Amino acid sequence: QSSLTLFGVADAAVSYYSAKGVYYATPVGSRAPLATPFEVERSLTALSSGGNASSRMGFRGSEDLGGGLAASFWLESGFNQDTGANGIATFVRRSTVSLSGGFGELRLGRDYVPTYWNESVFDPMGAVGVGENLIKTVSGNIATVRGPGSLIAPTDNAIRASNSIGYFLPRNLGGFFGQVMYALPENVDSSNVPGSSTKKGRYYGGRFGYASGPFDAAIAYGESTAADTTTLTAAGVVTGARFSDKLRTINLGASYDFGILKLMGELSQVRDSTSTVTPVRGVAGPAIKENDKYNGAMLGMTIPVGVGMIKASVARVKFDNDLGVVLPGTPDRDASARKLALGYVHNLSKRTALYASVAHVRVKDGQNNPAIMGVYAGGLANVAGGTATSGIAPRSARGYDLGIRHSF
Amino acid sequence: QSSLTLFGVADAAVSYYSAKGVYYATPVGSRAPLATPFEVERSLTALSSGGNASSRMGFRGSEDLGGGLAASFWLESGFNQDTGANGIATFVRRSTVSLSGGFGELRLGRDYVPTYWNESVFDPMGAVGVGENLIKTVSGNIATVRGPGSLIAPTDNAIRASNSIGYFLPRNLGGFFGQVMYALPENVDSSNVPGSSTKKGRYYGGRFGYASGPFDAAIAYGESTAADTTTLTAAGVVTGARFSDKLRTINLGASYDFGILKLMGELSQVRDSTSTVTPVRGVAGPAIKENDKYNGAMLGMTIPVGVGMIKASVARVKFDNDLGVVLPGTPDRDASARKLALGYVHNLSKRTALYASVAHVRVKDGQNNPAIMGVYAGGLANVAGGTATSGIAPRSARGYDLGIRHSF
Amino acid sequence: QSSLTLFGVADAAVSYYSAKGVYYATPVGSRAPLATPFEVERSLTALSSGGNASSRMGFRGSEDLGGGLAASFWLESGFNQDTGANGIATFVRRSTVSLSGGFGELRLGRDYVPTYWNESVFDPMGAVGVGENLIKTVSGNIATVRGPGSLIAPTDNAIRASNSIGYFLPRNLGGFFGQVMYALPENVDSSNVPGSSTKKGRYYGGRFGYASGPFDAAIAYGESTAADTTTLTAAGVVTGARFSDKLRTINLGASYDFGILKLMGELSQVRDSTSTVTPVRGVAGPAIKENDKYNGAMLGMTIPVGVGMIKASVARVKFDNDLGVVLPGTPDRDASARKLALGYVHNLSKRTALYASVAHVRVKDGQNNPAIMGVYAGGLANVAGGTATSGIAPRSARGYDLGIRHSF
Repeated sequence: QSSLTLFGVADAAVSYYSAKGVYYATPVGSRAPLATPFEVERSLTALSSGGNASSRMGFRGSEDLGGGLAASFWLESGFNQDTGANGIATFVRRSTVSLSGGFGELRLGRDYVPTYWNESVFDPMGAVGVGENLIKTVSGNIATVRGPGSLIAPTDNAIRASNSIGYFLPRNLGGFFGQVMYALPENVDSSNVPGSSTKKGRYYGGRFGYASGPFDAAIAYGESTAADTTTLTAAGVVTGARFSDKLRTINLGASYDFGILKLMGELSQVRDSTSTVTPVRGVAGPAIKENDKYNGAMLGMTIPVGVGMIKASVARVKFDNDLGVVLPGTPDRDASARKLALGYVHNLSKRTALYASVAHVRVKDGQNNPAIMGVYAGGLANVAGGTATSGIAPRSARGYDLGIRHSF
Repeated sequence: QSSLTLFGVADAAVSYYSAKGVYYATPVGSRAPLATPFEVERSLTALSSGGNASSRMGFRGSEDLGGGLAASFWLESGFNQDTGANGIATFVRRSTVSLSGGFGELRLGRDYVPTYWNESVFDPMGAVGVGENLIKTVSGNIATVRGPGSLIAPTDNAIRASNSIGYFLPRNLGGFFGQVMYALPENVDSSNVPGSSTKKGRYYGGRFGYASGPFDAAIAYGESTAADTTTLTAAGVVTGARFSDKLRTINLGASYDFGILKLMGELSQVRDSTSTVTPVRGVAGPAIKENDKYNGAMLGMTIPVGVGMIKASVARVKFDNDLGVVLPGTPDRDASARKLALGYVHNLSKRTALYASVAHVRVKDGQNNPAIMGVYAGGLANVAGGTATSGIAPRSARGYDLGIRHSF
Repeated sequence: QSSLTLFGVADAAVSYYSAKGVYYATPVGSRAPLATPFEVERSLTALSSGGNASSRMGFRGSEDLGGGLAASFWLESGFNQDTGANGIATFVRRSTVSLSGGFGELRLGRDYVPTYWNESVFDPMGAVGVGENLIKTVSGNIATVRGPGSLIAPTDNAIRASNSIGYFLPRNLGGFFGQVMYALPENVDSSNVPGSSTKKGRYYGGRFGYASGPFDAAIAYGESTAADTTTLTAAGVVTGARFSDKLRTINLGASYDFGILKLMGELSQVRDSTSTVTPVRGVAGPAIKENDKYNGAMLGMTIPVGVGMIKASVARVKFDNDLGVVLPGTPDRDASARKLALGYVHNLSKRTALYASVAHVRVKDGQNNPAIMGVYAGGLANVAGGTATSGIAPRSARGYDLGIRHSF
């Protein structure tokens, strides 16, 4: 006897993405102008998947064990509506088994990290499509460029974490809610390998908030160990540098529903902290530390209009370089990006909607920071963001989606 | 609340495939006989999947939106019953979301191309198993050898297309039916890359027909851009040849049910048109065009016998080489293939059947044309067709399936 | 109309694995002691999947065809609860379509081999988790190291076989039950390639037993062709050795339920038989045969305690080297392993349980036999078994699981 529920979203749109940049042949470190700098525009028209809600299919269920106790599971897969790729190849969107009761919920498996929730719950666009929260885009990019990533997803620990143990407070706390998560790094400890096991891949964090009536707010903190390595000789002797890199995220989101409109916003800081200790004549030298920051702010709103909903958001993320480590003559690394997103969702029913979104991004000094450079307004990275195009400094990007979303 | 329907087919057979060819060590372009030519026979006994209907699993559903409007989705995966390979790894059989109403149906995603339908609807064998429509086999081979293919399937645009926008006429047109499809090529347009974006991968086509009582007929046309390239210098200057290749398919299928037997057939032509423009001293030279044709005809019938059904078909495809481009001395490239297929399906219920099929193929000058050379009677290409066996000119192939098909 | 049933298991545990070994830098064939031998311990803490029952999702159904006849299918996928990897990417756990009736059941596709059943049915631990049946571990290792394996699984023919045709006796034989299976090797027979088709990958076997009241016992035999090759010249002339390798498994399992406890056990022998025929001056020389054996015994019990169940097992597998082929001076190859496993399952309901398992393994001369060397107590092979760590002779391994299993 099966107790499971199948659910999913089929979402497809006709989308257009374009990005403008300036071609420079000189190295990134140099500010010497090109003899003949010129602007490049790249664009793409595509059928896209998940512009209003990620195309997905899932299986979930719950069993009442008596005495307030329940066991439940959730297995969810993302697929590409436009090509049929991915299907139910994995359950990497979520793969959890839980035991819950008066004490709250204990959840094991792959799940969203606590720090991700403020980036999607308080985004009018739901962190998908061309208008997705700029803070989410940059946080994902940092994880891809710097973070531990995994074979499963380069953005691991920014959006989701595998091998996690999560705990959720019970729901009857008068509006207060909260969760903590610890994700095991799963690296081997060998007695003959100094520096093992490393902490690379570990995540821990939590999120606490209060929701009552029209008000909802939460603060979250998370730390992901992006790198943790010690260079050894073949014989296992520590010889080279010990390098560690941690991504520490703190963010705060809030929303207030005035009825005629709902205001929402997020403040976020991601610190990218590295420490390098190089042995000098067999003794560990001083730790060279760098503590860069990505400061983000997003403000949005949704306005119900009949069966429809108007959405808008503005956001900015600025990279704040730790100057202590930068050598004199280095170009300004304080890249930044701004984004404006507008959308309209026309609900044909509770489950089905037509939607239109448009977004515009401005990038400053993006070529000096891969996380900012990868900012896009939907679409393929090499079209919109320029990350895959060496020698092009991104200046702006825009995109639109015109689609249908059907939940089942 | 889920509204979806699960459906599928589990189909397995014991199959035997064999192919005879003549080994020749001399280059394909030469007609010099071998000192000691000899015949080679290759064979294989296997458990096969989908001899009567492709093994598959799917999820589909529809929601009534009121006012005659409906939203629906269809996600379908093919798997290998014999090995369990593929599972629901992808939805590449079909992945669509639709809005339908009095105006007809608008369908987005991955779907069958209009030109494919005449190759399966009017084939007594349903275009599967050892007896599958020879025209379908050759059309798929052309797409594999010449066509745009994709990472998803080498036969893309011959059978299915990704990134497609389809429109279907409403069903209440007094027996007339029709559909058109446009599949986006999704290539990047860069302002600094002349010739971009290319049209490679684009498909457009349509199918129109009339069905009433015992009569059913349809005509279809489709154009797939198999190649569209411009050779550039590293600096982006057009330097080399501009090459384009289009596969244009036109086919016509019809069936008439006389009660004691149902006659059906298909006529088809696939034109493989290439155009090469080579710059001469910086100026585009004359276009060298080649316009080859694959002309096919298939005639079949089904005869109900109690709970069973006898099936038979004969088919021929001839390659018609555009002699204008062929250099003198080139061997006869007018390869051709003939196929005879017989089958019996014994229905144990509406959903379950036992089946037996047998097919025989004759190939003439197949080594001079990879699309014809790849013709087989089921089974692995390197057994039956010889495509993977350089130096063997295929002569004949045969195969049988003895299996069970269970729909769920 | 769909008749299918969805079912599955979501199972996750916090697990710890460790293994001790001795590092030796000298070649495996030499018994010269290391100048400074030292012990190495490797360990890992992980979130694991399927410690009490393999995490899986499946689809199955049956149709009554009348007259006692039925058609049915079973498609089952394994996934990783801890990371979401694998999803329903394949149906390699089982992919079958069946016709059953008074005559028994005819089953086509990928299925468990008969010889596997005694290794899981009579194991108190169900052949999963840290405490899994040592005989199953070694049998799987032999198949991985020596066996035909496949692209689908290196343990193919030890646990499951693709392309199989199975027959099961009807169920009304007064307690007697039985099954036979033949799996097609699916290799190409080419008339111009002597020695083709090979039998590599073929499996045949059967299992027969009797179950009545508290008693259950079965004997099984299977033969898997692990290798079957003939070395040819480029011209197809037999020039080199003809090598064949067969894995023959015979095992016997039994259980008796005394009410307060259930006793169970298995005896097993896997023979690894190779035959090499080398041509001498164009004439086949004498066959050099080797007939190694893996002799295993396992004894276990389960004790119901309220809503819980205590489980325990001891097992031993000894490699018995065919001395006839071993050159003088070769080190003792008679590797062996012993395992002790204890577990407790606390049933929260029929479908949900908490569980704890612990296991300890001792390995003797394991470095001289990859199948024994790979023995572990759960977890990654390179942690626990040492197979991936050249130069480390495994001595012992231990592991525990602390988890939750939820069936749906």
